[in-house]
Amino acid sequence: MKIAFIGLGNMGGCMAQNLLKAGQQVWGYDLSEVALQHFTEGGGIVCSTPQAAAQEADIVITMLPAAKHVRDVYLGEDGVLATLKAGSLCIDCSTIDPQTIKDIAEAGEAKQIVVCDAPVSGGTIGAQAGTLTFMVGASEQTYEATKPVLSLMGKNVVHCGAVGTGQVAKICNNLILGISMTAVAEGMALGVKLGIDPHALAGVINSSSGRCWSSEVCNPWPDICANAPASRDYQDGFATQLMLKDLGLAIEAAGQVKQPVLLGGLVQQLYQQLCLQGHANLDFSSIIQQYLPAQK
Amino acid sequence: MKIAFIGLGNMGGCMAQNLLKAGQQVWGYDLSEVALQHFTEGGGIVCSTPQAAAQEADIVITMLPAAKHVRDVYLGEDGVLATLKAGSLCIDCSTIDPQTIKDIAEAGEAKQIVVCDAPVSGGTIGAQAGTLTFMVGASEQTYEATKPVLSLMGKNVVHCGAVGTGQVAKICNNLILGISMTAVAEGMALGVKLGIDPHALAGVINSSSGRCWSSEVCNPWPDICANAPASRDYQDGFATQLMLKDLGLAIEAAGQVKQPVLLGGLVQQLYQQLCLQGHANLDFSSIIQQYLPAQK
Amino acid sequence: MKIAFIGLGNMGGCMAQNLLKAGQQVWGYDLSEVALQHFTEGGGIVCSTPQAAAQEADIVITMLPAAKHVRDVYLGEDGVLATLKAGSLCIDCSTIDPQTIKDIAEAGEAKQIVVCDAPVSGGTIGAQAGTLTFMVGASEQTYEATKPVLSLMGKNVVHCGAVGTGQVAKICNNLILGISMTAVAEGMALGVKLGIDPHALAGVINSSSGRCWSSEVCNPWPDICANAPASRDYQDGFATQLMLKDLGLAIEAAGQVKQPVLLGGLVQQLYQQLCLQGHANLDFSSIIQQYLPAQK
Amino acid sequence: MKIAFIGLGNMGGCMAQNLLKAGQQVWGYDLSEVALQHFTEGGGIVCSTPQAAAQEADIVITMLPAAKHVRDVYLGEDGVLATLKAGSLCIDCSTIDPQTIKDIAEAGEAKQIVVCDAPVSGGTIGAQAGTLTFMVGASEQTYEATKPVLSLMGKNVVHCGAVGTGQVAKICNNLILGISMTAVAEGMALGVKLGIDPHALAGVINSSSGRCWSSEVCNPWPDICANAPASRDYQDGFATQLMLKDLGLAIEAAGQVKQPVLLGGLVQQLYQQLCLQGHANLDFSSIIQQYLPAQK
Repeated sequence: MKIAFIGLGNMGGCMAQNLLKAGQQVWGYDLSEVALQHFTEGGGIVCSTPQAAAQEADIVITMLPAAKHVRDVYLGEDGVLATLKAGSLCIDCSTIDPQTIKDIAEAGEAKQIVVCDAPVSGGTIGAQAGTLTFMVGASEQTYEATKPVLSLMGKNVVHCGAVGTGQVAKICNNLILGISMTAVAEGMALGVKLGIDPHALAGVINSSSGRCWSSEVCNPWPDICANAPASRDYQDGFATQLMLKDLGLAIEAAGQVKQPVLLGGLVQQLYQQLCLQGHANLDFSSIIQQYLPAQK
Repeated sequence: MKIAFIGLGNMGGCMAQNLLKAGQQVWGYDLSEVALQHFTEGGGIVCSTPQAAAQEADIVITMLPAAKHVRDVYLGEDGVLATLKAGSLCIDCSTIDPQTIKDIAEAGEAKQIVVCDAPVSGGTIGAQAGTLTFMVGASEQTYEATKPVLSLMGKNVVHCGAVGTGQVAKICNNLILGISMTAVAEGMALGVKLGIDPHALAGVINSSSGRCWSSEVCNPWPDICANAPASRDYQDGFATQLMLKDLGLAIEAAGQVKQPVLLGGLVQQLYQQLCLQGHANLDFSSIIQQYLPAQK
Repeated sequence: MKIAFIGLGNMGGCMAQNLLKAGQQVWGYDLSEVALQHFTEGGGIVCSTPQAAAQEADIVITMLPAAKHVRDVYLGEDGVLATLKAGSLCIDCSTIDPQTIKDIAEAGEAKQIVVCDAPVSGGTIGAQAGTLTFMVGASEQTYEATKPVLSLMGKNVVHCGAVGTGQVAKICNNLILGISMTAVAEGMALGVKLGIDPHALAGVINSSSGRCWSSEVCNPWPDICANAPASRDYQDGFATQLMLKDLGLAIEAAGQVKQPVLLGGLVQQLYQQLCLQGHANLDFSSIIQQYLPAQK
Repeated sequence: MKIAFIGLGNMGGCMAQNLLKAGQQVWGYDLSEVALQHFTEGGGIVCSTPQAAAQEADIVITMLPAAKHVRDVYLGEDGVLATLKAGSLCIDCSTIDPQTIKDIAEAGEAKQIVVCDAPVSGGTIGAQAGTLTFMVGASEQTYEATKPVLSLMGKNVVHCGAVGTGQVAKICNNLILGISMTAVAEGMALGVKLGIDPHALAGVINSSSGRCWSSEVCNPWPDICANAPASRDYQDGFATQLMLKDLGLAIEAAGQVKQPVLLGGLVQQLYQQLCLQGHANLDFSSIIQQYLPAQK
């Protein structure tokens, strides 16, 4: 089985390594020399274009920054769909809007190429450890076909529904995540200002109806969760600018189907404000800065 | 040990019954004849004023609608503090602002009466079943003193810190709850509009970083959680107007300490809008109505 | 005609001076020695209590910081209503909630004392220059009775309706003001970031449908309006904390009548955030700071 | 002088008629047969493609629904830039994002074709009456060149700065407009609920610091402004869905330059909610519906 992997950045690079470690042959492409170097060292075969990597591939996996790149790689003049053989399978793991992947899947169908979406959660840590969750948008049959290869890179492969629903699940989850993180930031900052010990407050919340991933696993107040970015100066987490990107996707998709997202619209702007103040690369739990006095 | 119980409504009535079932003697007061009738039937001793109930009591428990009532019962001319003997213990289980209970505790101190706050979570179901959580704001010693009696009415008695911090924990938790419920409503409504099955979406969220009490236990989309109000037309839950009251307490307390609560300020108004549209008595998860077409 | 003036601070002090300049005899009271000194120098007669000032007065004017003070001065044990003669007229020029003045007016009625509200717009500059606008909540007859004295301190005396409606007009106006100022801040900051000259942008807005007092008279971008606080480092204007107070009154009044104020709820919190960052004493047009990079 | 006019809808159709009335020869194109019929009746020369209309034109005016159409008309394979002669002038009057017109202008430059943006305010009434305001983004020289022709369709031709700044001015103005309209809706609804007469309230606001175009000219409360849409059941105004489109442009442009627009982000969603409830075609002042009880 020949696997092509296009996009070998922070996430894609680690994912490809796990394929190589599992004994797969992988043909790879990336714009970055450093990324390609690392890929070669792991045993990957470097190609000079996406099309070259996809040549004769049975499975193409893409992990790219934005819809524009995904569209170019698949649908561009020298794109992957133009070179792939009938019967091959494309899995896009990027986080993009649902419509783009539906468009590409439709274009693939005309050439008997199956395209599906499988965005991930778990971050670079999950990518390295091979413990990602994949949210697959595909037919039942295609979903089954993705499982063997995705299982080499993650521990959960969840079927969300038809093509595009993997993206829908991802952006809806991250919409809720961005809002609930900000909610926890507000609640923790308010409680401490009102005189309660932050550990006592977190304890109550986590055993009550306010509990959420953002309060239990990634609490924005320092030293509540030992392994959370808040306990290491908001370093090495899910960057504010990436949360901002995902909120943008949610709100754009909402606009396309004329669906209001009131808190989402506000939280997007609050994350934009946080970036403006220079925190684009900090973990998104640093939104708590907006609730603390300026000097801190 | 003589226990006085003032405020025998939906919550207080059930709590008092659990004391009676546990073999305690309870002197009770309420404005409502129906409430008193029910209390008598359970073996309680009805009194005609709060002061009469508190006469010679060792422990006074109050469960009242708002700060105004708590203030009147304790500090009024014929109030409880004026009649209690030194060394008695007052436990206010109402949900009110932190400052009021601090003021009352200070007034009590002058008479060697110990006052603490112990607001609850768990709703009327928890009150009936005796499975409430009490969030106690008191000295360590007083906290220990409240445990035997509170344990007869609940399963968790949590120490939050000094007097007032029980209220702080409660309102911060409910602030986060109100926001995260609205977040889940937005995310679920958006996902379904974008074409994903609501069960599949809830499944992804609940195994990912968007998970929270509002998605797992009380999902606002019908028939995701069998026992949630959303699965019974938003009946018999935590009423929108009570959530609105608690958000009001959070925002008022925030204003007193000059602390911003951006999402809180907006969500309070969204719940106010929901009440304006006639849903004051539905469970607060009915906020999802704001995200669905008008005809529904 | 004997006039009593209670509350001789920044606003009240200037207003009283205008009465004195117009040849009126004025008996005054304030807690501040400095304020009383200034009042004496202008020819006022200093009294040691509000009650002393009101003794035998035909007209009492109050200008106080908050509802609590107004309530104390009128309804307290040694309050003004207890000492005034029947037939006298009380004009409260403070900015407070509408309900308080209605309560006081009702208490006055029982003693044949007429009480009305007449909050002002125009700031300290208008108070000094005698160019204030008074928004009067009173019966038609009382409104006519207030005009001679209010005209000595302002140029517009507007009848808003029954008692309390002066306050309603004031807080609704300032609600709109706080929001539209923030809107102009957003629009100006966005436009400049997108590359338009701020003067050109302000020119378009002010000749188009975005024009408002905040864009035309008090533009938050520096040097658009020569006399606006933005052109003098946001000094000597309408302080952020006073705007925050007025927004608080609007939102509190809205809550009492169960009326949603979505943008109001958010803007209140944005002004709270601005105060948290140390700008409580700057003009409220400094909200534009929230839209500029941190270092600026 | 040969003028081509592409896009003869509600706005463009009326604008072209004014050129014809002024004695100009106009070659026109639109997809709609009805629009072309009306154009012919006014003396226009119908063409079967945009390119045919632009053939040999000295000036091309475009008035199209969205950026996508503008891009296609100018840059498409059979686009206008491919057929125009060097030295010709293109004026795009559509409301689109600033970047698109900058891209087109750059493409034009390579062929010595001058492209500028001149979005309008004034609505269909202004288009009919020839009283539009044009916001021109162009060099000083090009601006002067647009004036003779634009003056035939409007009464104000304002120079905003370089190419794209016309769009910037338009979207910033409409951002402020959408927010201030909602602010006035909140303030009016609150005031009336608190008991003030809406006419009295509007009177105070319009002579005070809350005054804005939305309170003075287009007040959302019925019968305050006789000629406003609110006084004719919100018919025949600036449709909610068009305001929603413009807010979308503002927020998208803000995202591109990483600029927060907090109130804008929320108001966009409130207008989306209004559309969801079936009011997409009502005047945007119908946002006041969100502040009134459901039955109304």
